[in-house]
Amino acid sequence: MQIKSVKKLTQYPHLNLYSIQYRDTLGGDNQWIYASRSDNADPRHPPRDTPDAVVVVPFHLPSQCLVVIREFRVVLGDYQYGFPAGLVDRGESVVQAGRRELFEETGLGVTRVMGQSPILHSSSGLSDETVSLLRVECSGEPSTLHTEASEDIEVLLLDRDAAKALTLEDGSKFDVKTWIILEQFASHGHI
Amino acid sequence: MQIKSVKKLTQYPHLNLYSIQYRDTLGGDNQWIYASRSDNADPRHPPRDTPDAVVVVPFHLPSQCLVVIREFRVVLGDYQYGFPAGLVDRGESVVQAGRRELFEETGLGVTRVMGQSPILHSSSGLSDETVSLLRVECSGEPSTLHTEASEDIEVLLLDRDAAKALTLEDGSKFDVKTWIILEQFASHGHI
Repeated sequence: MQIKSVKKLTQYPHLNLYSIQYRDTLGGDNQWIYASRSDNADPRHPPRDTPDAVVVVPFHLPSQCLVVIREFRVVLGDYQYGFPAGLVDRGESVVQAGRRELFEETGLGVTRVMGQSPILHSSSGLSDETVSLLRVECSGEPSTLHTEASEDIEVLLLDRDAAKALTLEDGSKFDVKTWIILEQFASHGHI
Repeated sequence: MQIKSVKKLTQYPHLNLYSIQYRDTLGGDNQWIYASRSDNADPRHPPRDTPDAVVVVPFHLPSQCLVVIREFRVVLGDYQYGFPAGLVDRGESVVQAGRRELFEETGLGVTRVMGQSPILHSSSGLSDETVSLLRVECSGEPSTLHTEASEDIEVLLLDRDAAKALTLEDGSKFDVKTWIILEQFASHGHI
């Protein structure tokens, strides 16, 4: 495969479509359209050393519960269960962004960082979006006093039984990463 | 939160940008731009009863290995480790699509369906894309003779040690769902 050229198709502030012209393994010329938050999403450029977003996987040590939020997602027109997450600001590390997002969305404080994944790809057929997972232990009382005005969030502390019940809830919407980890926690007790 | 209107911003064949006008919890009017594969991505419409895509989590029973593919992703301009996956064709079930994609991309045959997730959301800040995970047992010899001309794929059978080594590989690119399950398999031996 060989990338021939990349063209920005739209000019919106936060998300745009790009078109890649490429030559496939049989020598045919093709086009692939994808979405990016980047100003200049040419994959031939060196990748950024921080991901677009951090996804926090928080274990609440005092209650031995996994922390999940139920948040209104405009794109779905509905509430979705997911982990606290958000864009990594310029100059922020993944750990700093994760601490900030966890506090803003749940009121909880990180007491220990358990692990940080490499930069991972959310859905590389559709977008160049990258995320890192940040596994943390946290404590404190859940509170949504620190959320942004535009956010509509409820905080859930789930033990294994509650996690199991949630994965079986009919008609509820889930983020895929959260669902995989919820199932794992419900079935095996670890995240 | 209240969705006021939805507008299709672009007219490309496979992926488009949409804009949602909505009223937030404080009564402020806002706009959210997102990407969709749908022709009519208004979230106020009833959701489809099949997901956009299936992601197959294949366990190769004869070798007791997890099956992962290394595939060139145009959007990343590079190879990425991921599970066999693809769009669910019109009229196909998730199981049918999963069997087809697993065979096309790896040459392996499903011998048992272990579980099918509900419809899950890939990255709902960015897109309305939905996927279902299909956990299967499979057998056969890995082969890429059945891939589409435009695909550039290598099939890997990973035992726990190989899965661990892969997650530690420096500079490699991973799909986020695959990385979570690879780590889980490497650490705990289950998927």
